[in-house]
Amino acid sequence: MITERLGGLAFGGDYNPEQWDEQVWEEDDALMRAAGVNLVTVGVFSWALLEPEEGRYDFAWLDAHVDRLHANGIAIDLATPTASPPPWFTLAHPDALPVRPDGTKLVHGSRDTYCLTSPAYRDAARRIASALAERYGDHPAVALWHVHNEYATLCWCDHTASAFRVWLQARYGSLDVLNEAWGTAFWSQRYTAWEQVLPPRATQWHRNPGQALDFSRFFSDEVIAAYREQRDAIRAFSDRPVTTNLMMPGYQNVDLWALGREVDVVAIDHYPDAPGLDAAADVAFAADRARSFAGGRPWLLMEQGTSTVYAGDRVLAKEPGEVLRHSLGHVARGSEGALFFQWRQSKAGAEQWHSGMVPHAGPDSRVFREVTETGAAVARLAALAGSTVTAQVAVLHDSDAWWALNSDGLPSSELGYHSALRAAHRALWDGGVVADFAHPATDLSRYRLVLAPSLYLLSDEGAENLRRYARDGGTLLVQHFSGVVDSRVHARLGGYPVAALREALGIRVEEHRPLRRDERITLSDGSHGAAWSESIRLEGAEAVATYTHGMLAGLPALTRNGTAWYLSTRLDTADYTALVSALLDSADVARLGLPPGVEAVTREGPECRWHFLLNHSGDPVPLPLPVHDLLTGRLTRDVPAGGCVVLEER
Amino acid sequence: MITERLGGLAFGGDYNPEQWDEQVWEEDDALMRAAGVNLVTVGVFSWALLEPEEGRYDFAWLDAHVDRLHANGIAIDLATPTASPPPWFTLAHPDALPVRPDGTKLVHGSRDTYCLTSPAYRDAARRIASALAERYGDHPAVALWHVHNEYATLCWCDHTASAFRVWLQARYGSLDVLNEAWGTAFWSQRYTAWEQVLPPRATQWHRNPGQALDFSRFFSDEVIAAYREQRDAIRAFSDRPVTTNLMMPGYQNVDLWALGREVDVVAIDHYPDAPGLDAAADVAFAADRARSFAGGRPWLLMEQGTSTVYAGDRVLAKEPGEVLRHSLGHVARGSEGALFFQWRQSKAGAEQWHSGMVPHAGPDSRVFREVTETGAAVARLAALAGSTVTAQVAVLHDSDAWWALNSDGLPSSELGYHSALRAAHRALWDGGVVADFAHPATDLSRYRLVLAPSLYLLSDEGAENLRRYARDGGTLLVQHFSGVVDSRVHARLGGYPVAALREALGIRVEEHRPLRRDERITLSDGSHGAAWSESIRLEGAEAVATYTHGMLAGLPALTRNGTAWYLSTRLDTADYTALVSALLDSADVARLGLPPGVEAVTREGPECRWHFLLNHSGDPVPLPLPVHDLLTGRLTRDVPAGGCVVLEER
Amino acid sequence: MITERLGGLAFGGDYNPEQWDEQVWEEDDALMRAAGVNLVTVGVFSWALLEPEEGRYDFAWLDAHVDRLHANGIAIDLATPTASPPPWFTLAHPDALPVRPDGTKLVHGSRDTYCLTSPAYRDAARRIASALAERYGDHPAVALWHVHNEYATLCWCDHTASAFRVWLQARYGSLDVLNEAWGTAFWSQRYTAWEQVLPPRATQWHRNPGQALDFSRFFSDEVIAAYREQRDAIRAFSDRPVTTNLMMPGYQNVDLWALGREVDVVAIDHYPDAPGLDAAADVAFAADRARSFAGGRPWLLMEQGTSTVYAGDRVLAKEPGEVLRHSLGHVARGSEGALFFQWRQSKAGAEQWHSGMVPHAGPDSRVFREVTETGAAVARLAALAGSTVTAQVAVLHDSDAWWALNSDGLPSSELGYHSALRAAHRALWDGGVVADFAHPATDLSRYRLVLAPSLYLLSDEGAENLRRYARDGGTLLVQHFSGVVDSRVHARLGGYPVAALREALGIRVEEHRPLRRDERITLSDGSHGAAWSESIRLEGAEAVATYTHGMLAGLPALTRNGTAWYLSTRLDTADYTALVSALLDSADVARLGLPPGVEAVTREGPECRWHFLLNHSGDPVPLPLPVHDLLTGRLTRDVPAGGCVVLEER
Repeated sequence: MITERLGGLAFGGDYNPEQWDEQVWEEDDALMRAAGVNLVTVGVFSWALLEPEEGRYDFAWLDAHVDRLHANGIAIDLATPTASPPPWFTLAHPDALPVRPDGTKLVHGSRDTYCLTSPAYRDAARRIASALAERYGDHPAVALWHVHNEYATLCWCDHTASAFRVWLQARYGSLDVLNEAWGTAFWSQRYTAWEQVLPPRATQWHRNPGQALDFSRFFSDEVIAAYREQRDAIRAFSDRPVTTNLMMPGYQNVDLWALGREVDVVAIDHYPDAPGLDAAADVAFAADRARSFAGGRPWLLMEQGTSTVYAGDRVLAKEPGEVLRHSLGHVARGSEGALFFQWRQSKAGAEQWHSGMVPHAGPDSRVFREVTETGAAVARLAALAGSTVTAQVAVLHDSDAWWALNSDGLPSSELGYHSALRAAHRALWDGGVVADFAHPATDLSRYRLVLAPSLYLLSDEGAENLRRYARDGGTLLVQHFSGVVDSRVHARLGGYPVAALREALGIRVEEHRPLRRDERITLSDGSHGAAWSESIRLEGAEAVATYTHGMLAGLPALTRNGTAWYLSTRLDTADYTALVSALLDSADVARLGLPPGVEAVTREGPECRWHFLLNHSGDPVPLPLPVHDLLTGRLTRDVPAGGCVVLEER
Repeated sequence: MITERLGGLAFGGDYNPEQWDEQVWEEDDALMRAAGVNLVTVGVFSWALLEPEEGRYDFAWLDAHVDRLHANGIAIDLATPTASPPPWFTLAHPDALPVRPDGTKLVHGSRDTYCLTSPAYRDAARRIASALAERYGDHPAVALWHVHNEYATLCWCDHTASAFRVWLQARYGSLDVLNEAWGTAFWSQRYTAWEQVLPPRATQWHRNPGQALDFSRFFSDEVIAAYREQRDAIRAFSDRPVTTNLMMPGYQNVDLWALGREVDVVAIDHYPDAPGLDAAADVAFAADRARSFAGGRPWLLMEQGTSTVYAGDRVLAKEPGEVLRHSLGHVARGSEGALFFQWRQSKAGAEQWHSGMVPHAGPDSRVFREVTETGAAVARLAALAGSTVTAQVAVLHDSDAWWALNSDGLPSSELGYHSALRAAHRALWDGGVVADFAHPATDLSRYRLVLAPSLYLLSDEGAENLRRYARDGGTLLVQHFSGVVDSRVHARLGGYPVAALREALGIRVEEHRPLRRDERITLSDGSHGAAWSESIRLEGAEAVATYTHGMLAGLPALTRNGTAWYLSTRLDTADYTALVSALLDSADVARLGLPPGVEAVTREGPECRWHFLLNHSGDPVPLPLPVHDLLTGRLTRDVPAGGCVVLEER
Repeated sequence: MITERLGGLAFGGDYNPEQWDEQVWEEDDALMRAAGVNLVTVGVFSWALLEPEEGRYDFAWLDAHVDRLHANGIAIDLATPTASPPPWFTLAHPDALPVRPDGTKLVHGSRDTYCLTSPAYRDAARRIASALAERYGDHPAVALWHVHNEYATLCWCDHTASAFRVWLQARYGSLDVLNEAWGTAFWSQRYTAWEQVLPPRATQWHRNPGQALDFSRFFSDEVIAAYREQRDAIRAFSDRPVTTNLMMPGYQNVDLWALGREVDVVAIDHYPDAPGLDAAADVAFAADRARSFAGGRPWLLMEQGTSTVYAGDRVLAKEPGEVLRHSLGHVARGSEGALFFQWRQSKAGAEQWHSGMVPHAGPDSRVFREVTETGAAVARLAALAGSTVTAQVAVLHDSDAWWALNSDGLPSSELGYHSALRAAHRALWDGGVVADFAHPATDLSRYRLVLAPSLYLLSDEGAENLRRYARDGGTLLVQHFSGVVDSRVHARLGGYPVAALREALGIRVEEHRPLRRDERITLSDGSHGAAWSESIRLEGAEAVATYTHGMLAGLPALTRNGTAWYLSTRLDTADYTALVSALLDSADVARLGLPPGVEAVTREGPECRWHFLLNHSGDPVPLPLPVHDLLTGRLTRDVPAGGCVVLEER
C-alpha cells in the first residue's frame, strides 16, 4: 500500500508547477518540507504540455519535476491528464466533443470538453496513459497513479447513441425485452429497430423513465470502462496502485459501488457545501461513504480545500481550526492521509479563487500556518496506516435508486435522494454514531440498525435481503416512497412497497399523498412532518404514531412490526433525530454521551485503537482523566475549543 | 348522439390494454362491469402497434380488444393514435420533427414529437385515420371517434415557415397589407419578398406583436385543418360522431370557438391546478367553458384524474368524495358523462404516477371504491342525456385577446389572461351563479350581466357589439387594460379603450399606470387594488369610487355610465367578489342563498329539470324539506358533508 | 457645436414619420412648434425604406421629410439606420447573423440581428452611411449625425472568431504571450496554433477569465471600429458633428472612455430603473457619467422617456413633474438639451408601449402638456449652451474592472460592479455633491475625494496613480475586493491589494471572507455590513473600526493611513452614506445644507453661473431671499413641491 511507501499517512496536494516559474519551484521545495508534505499529485492538467501535438509526447518538462520532487523526498501521485484535452484536440476531433441533450456542442475553454464514448477520445486517453506509465512506471518517486480527474462529463452525441445501443443489446438481448422493460407500450414508443433507440435527448414532454435510468447506468459503465482502459494500460508498465478521484457526494454519475471494486484505493474529493457544524457533518458523510465504497478498507482523501466551502452562490472561507479538524475528520473515518487541491492557489485561470495550501498572500498567512500544523499532526499519526473503522449502523445507498428518483413526472419535487441520505446520516452523526453506507442487496447482518431513506427503486434481491435482515432481528427503518418501483422502474402493484417489504413491515401503502408546499402536519406523538404522507393499512404492524388531521386522521404514520419500522412522512429534523436516537437505543447501538458538536471516532488496528476527539464547538470539553494526546505528545485535560485530541489505546 | 347509443350518460376512461397481459384483461372485464363502465377510449397511444412499419397496418391486436369489449357490453371511443408517432417515424421523416424557436430539434422519447405542418406527418396521420375508419367504421361497439389527443405541439421549422407564408398570403393578399398590419415600419422590418417572412424565431429583442399574434392564429388554423383532415377521412367510412379532446384551460394553442364548430361533440380534459374548494371552482370553470364552446349543447368530459391535482411542482391526491363531486360538477354543467385518464394506472412509462380508476394498489382501494360509487351515480342520471344549462351571465373569452396579451414588451408582467378569466368566473361561482363564456362579437342579448376582464385586444365588431349590448340595457363590466388594441394589435388612439367602448362607458383612459410589485392601493369605497391603475377622464360616466393617493388621488377608479361599468384596477379578491355580487343584484340575476362551498346547478330537459347540490364543505347542509335524492333513490333531509344530492323536478 | 446651429439647447426626440400618414405629419408640424421642438432624430429605423433592395437606395421619402422639417424650422439629427437591417439582409447574408455562445443563430424579427464583425454587415453599414452623407451632408437642416443606435449586439460566430484572433495577434504578438496572459497552464488550455483560439463559447465549466476579459475588450474595439468606419464615411461628405447614442448605464459592452474620444459629442440614452427619488438619483448618475466620458465637455441627452421607468418585470409611468425635473437634471449636469424617444408613441410594433412625447391619447394629455412646459423651460436656458460643471469628487470607473468582475468562479454573487458604482454615487448625491467619474489611471489631482468601489481589476499604472494621489494629500476611499487582479486578471500575490495600494493604504489583506447570504455583521463603531469581509493586517494604517465577532473579531474593518482609507465590507446604505459624508467633510468638499430630496447643481460659463434647484420632494422648499427664476421669468420665494428653479448668477 501507498502508506508503506510513504512510511506513514499521506499529506500534500495537487501540484501544478507548470503554472509557476523556477524561483517559485525553489520556494516550493522548502515550503513543502516545512509543511510536512510527502505526496503530491502531478500532471492532472498537463496534457497540453505532455502532448503538444497529437501523437508527439514531450516528457522533458515532467522528468525535471519528478526528479526534483524525488530529490526533495516527496512521492508522486502521477496523474493522467485526460480530464482536460488541449485545444488541438477540439480541432483534430470535432466529433469527440460533448453534446448536450438539446444538441448544443461544447468546445474547449474550460476543461472536460470531450465525449467519453468517442473512439478518438478513448484512444487518445489510453495512449497518453500508456506513454506515461512506460516512462514513469517504475520511477521510485511514483507512489500512486491518478487516472483522469472527477469523471463527470455526460454526452448525448451520435457516438454515445451507438455505444448506448451496444450496451442495451448486451443487457436486453432483444428489442422485445427492451420494449417490455421500458414500458414502451405507453405513448407508442415501441422500438422496431435498434437504430431507433437514442439517448434521452430533448423531447416534447416527460422522458421515458426506463430509458433515462438505463442511460445513467450505461454512462456509469462507460466511465468504468474508460477508467479500466487507462488502468490496464498503466498496469502493463507499473506495479504501483491505481485510482481515480471521485467527485463530491452531490454528483452521482457513476455507480460508486462498482467503481470502488475497480480502483486499488478509493480516492475522493470533498468540499463542504455549508459552513460550521454542517461542514463537519458533511466531512463525516463523505468519509463514511468513501470507506463504504472501499469495502471497509482504508481510502484516501485526494482533494479538499484549505478554505473552500461551496455555499450556493458563493464560496465561503473556512474558519480557523477547520483545516485540521476536517483533515482529521477524514483520517478518523479511514482516510490514509489528507491531500488538498492545490498546493499553490493559482494566480490565473478559472480557479484562481479556489483556495490553496499556499494562498495568494503567501506563506506568511493563517492558512499556511494551519496547513503546517495539520501536516505535523498527520505525521504523528503514521502508525494508523492500515487501520480500519467499524460501524454498527448502515444507511442504504443505491445508484439505481438515486437515478430513478431523477425521473420526470414524480409526484413531488421534494423527493431528493441526496438530501434524504444526508438527513439520515446527520441524524446518526448527531446521535454520536459512525455509520456505514451499504448497498441494499449486500449482507447487512453485521449491522444493528439499517436506515432506508428514499429507496424509491428497490430490486427484488434488495427487498428480499431487507426482509431477511429484519426477520433475523435487525432493526430496520424504511422511509416514505421506498420500494415502490423495481429495477426496471415498474411500479410495485397491489400496494406499496414491494411484497417482501410489505411482509417485513406488516403494512400496505395504498396511496401516496404528497403535501402542499409549506404544508406541515402533526402526528399523534407530537412530532411534525412535511412534504409527504401516505395512506397505510396495517397488516400485522402496530401504529406507533398516527396522522391527526385530514383524510389520513387516525391512520398510521409511523409503524412497527417487531424490529421493522416504517415512516411515511418526512419528519422535521429534531423529530427525526429523536426517532433515530430511539432506534439506536432499541437496537443497543453503543455510543458515548458527548456534548453537541463533539465528534468521537475510533480507528482500529491489529494491536491498537486510536480514539479521535474532534471538538467542533466553541467551548473546551473537559476529559474525565488527563490523557496523552498523540497529536501533541503531551498530557491534556480537555479537548480545546475547536481542537482535536487523539488517544492511542493499546 | 352518443348517449342514445349508450342508453345513458357515459362512464369510463382511456383503456390501454397494450400495457397489460391477458390475465389483467380478464380482470378488467369484471372490474369494468362492477364499476359501471360503458365507454372506453382505445388506441390513443397505439400507433406503434397498429402500424409497426410505415404503411403496413396490423389490426389483429385491436380486433381482439374491440370484440372483447363489445362482448362485455362496453362501447368504444376509438382514437386515432396520431399524437404519438412511433420511433420509426423519426428516422423515416427527420424533417417532420418539431423545432423550437431557437432551432433545437426534438426527437421521440416522450410523445407529440411531430411537426404538425410537415407533409409527411399530415399524410401519415390521415392515412392511419382512414385505415382505422375503414376497418372499424361500422363496428357496433364504436360509439365515438377520438381524433388525436390534446393538440398542443407548436413548431418553428421550415415547413412551418412555408405554411405560415401561405396562410399570410391568404389573409393579407399582399406584402403591403401585411407590412401595414404588422407595423413593420417600426424597427425597419419591412418585408419585400414573401420568403423573408418567418415564424417568430429566436431574435435579439422583443418579437413583433403582429407577427406573434398571426403565428398563433395560423397555428390554430393548422390544428383545425389537421383535425378536419382526419375527421373527413373517418366520415368517409363511418357515421359515428367525431371529436378531439381539448387540453386543459391553461393552454391556449387553438381558437376553441372555431374548433368547437368542427367537432360533433366538444370534449375536454380537466385536471384541477389547486386542491380543495379551488379545485371545485376549477371544475366549474372548465365545464362552463366546454359548454360555451359547444354552443350550449351537451359536451363530454373526456379525461379527468381519480387523484391528480397539478399544484406547481407536485401532483396532489384528491380528497375522498372529490371523484364523485368533480364528476357530477361536470355533469351538472352539461357533460354527457364522466371519463377518466386512464382505466388502470400504468405500471411503467412516463405517466406511471398519473392516477387511474384502478390504482397501483388494485381494486381493494379507496379510489376504486369511489370510482364504483361514481359509476353507479352516473348510471342513475341516464335521463339527463341531452338536457342543457342556461346562464344569465357571461364572461367574454377571446383567443385573439389571450394571444395578444402574450406580446413581448407589455407594461407589466401581471397582465395574465387566464388568471383574469379565472378570477371573474370565480367571483360568479362564489356568488352562486352559473356563467357562460362568450365571444365578444356574438349576440349577448340573452345575458343580464357580461364581464370583460383583460380584453386587451378587442375588434371593431366586438367593441360595437358591447356598445350595443350596454345601450340595450345589458349590465357590462369592462376591466382594466381592455379594448386598447385592435385586431392587428394596433393601439387605439385618442384615449383608451376603443371609441365605441369609450362612448358606452362614458370615460376616456388617458394613461396606464402600472403599480409596483407588491404595491397595494386603496379606493375611496375602502376596497383595495394591486398591479394596475389608470388615469381616467369622465365623459358622461360617474365615479363610483376614486383613487385615494398618489397622482391619481381623487380621479375615478370605478365608473358607471348607466349599466356600463369600468374598473381600472385589479381589485383584491374579496372586494372584486363584492363588486360582482352587487352587479348581479343590480342586473336582477337570480340566485339561491347557499352557504359557502355549496354549489347548485340546474340542467333542463324538455320535460324535466334536475337540480344538482354539491356540498364541497365539511358540514352537512340541511334542506328546507325532505327531498328525494336521485343518486340514492332515497329521501334525504340534507346534503351530507362532502356529498351530492340531485333532485328531479318534473 | 450643435447649440450654435440651434441657437440654444436642443429639445425634441426621435421622429419616425414612416409609421404615420400625411395627416399626422401635418399635425406633427403644428405640435412640434407648440412644444418648442427644435431638433429631431430621423432615420434610425429606416433602412428598409432607404435601401429597399441591396445596393439600391431610395431617398425620395426622406427628402420630403427633411425638407418639411426644415421648412418648419426644425433641425435634424440624421441617423444611419444600421442598428436594424431589413429582412432582405438575413436572406442575402445568412453568415452575417448573430450567433449566441451556444450556437443559436438569431434571425430578424426584432432589431439588431447582425454580427458586427461580419464583412457583409460592415460593408453594408458603411455604404449606406456614405450614401446618406453624400445626399444630406450639407443640407442646412442637418445639425448632427447619429451613427447607429445603442451598439449592443455581441456575437460568437466564426467571423467573430477570426476577428478575435486578429485582435489577439495584434495585442499579444505570439501565442506564448497569450498563453502566459490567459494562464492557459491551468486546465491544459495551452494554445499551439492560432486557429485553436475561439470566442468564449459554451463549454463544460467556468470560462477562462483572461479569454472572457479579452473578448469583452475585443468586442468593444470592434464596436469602436464599426463606429469609426461610419463616422469617417460621413466626414467625407459632411462637416456636421457625428455621434452615436450610448446604451443605459447598466450595459457595458463598450469602453466608454475610448468611445468618448471618438465622438464629436457624447450622447446617451437614459431610462430610470426605479421610480421616485431613485429615478432622480439615477438621472444624476447617468448624467455625471456622460459628462465624464465627454471629458467634462457638454454632452447630449439623446433619449429619455416621457413616462418610462423600467422596474424589473414592469414599466412604470413617470409622476407629474418628472419630465421637467429629469430633463433639467440632465441639463444641470451638462447636457446641451433634452431629447426623447420618441415623438409619437408608436401605435404598432414591438415598442408600442414605450411612452412618447405625443402619447396614444393624443396632445390633450398630461404628458403632452408636460412636454410643452419642458420645451418652454429648455428654451429659456439657451444661454447655458457650452457651459460646464465642476466636481470636487470622483468615483473611479473602469471597463476592465467591470468586465473582469463578470468572471465565472468569483467568491460571491454579490460582487456587482454597477450596483457598487450606483451606491457610491448615491452616497455622494445624498450628500449634496456633484461627482465626476474618472478612469483610475488619469490625473486625479483636481479632486479632493476619490472613491474606488469594486475596482477588482486595477492596472499597475492605475495603482501607482492612486498611490501618488493619496501621497499628494488626496482623500481616497478604496473599497473591498479592489486591486486584487492585474490587467491580465492575474491575482496580486503576497497579500491584496496590489503593492502600490498596500503601501498607500498601509494595510495588507490576507484573506477574503465572503459572508453568507443574508448574514449581517456589526462593526465596532455601530455600523453594519453585509456580503463581504476581509482579514486585514495593519502595516502603517490605523483601524478606524473593527469587526466585532467571528474569526475577524478585533481585526480592522475600516482603516485609515493619512488620507487613504480602506473599507473591507459592504456597509449598509445609511452607514455608508455617513462614512462618505464624513470623508466629504474631512476633504473639505463644499456643499450646501439642503433638505432631503432637493438637488442643487451649478453650470458655469465664462461670465455666468446657473444654479439649478430641483425639488424632488413633496414639500415646497423656502428660499432665504426671493430670487428671479429663469424658468418663469418671475420672482419666487420657494422651490415648489416637485418643481424647479434656475438662478442666473453673473
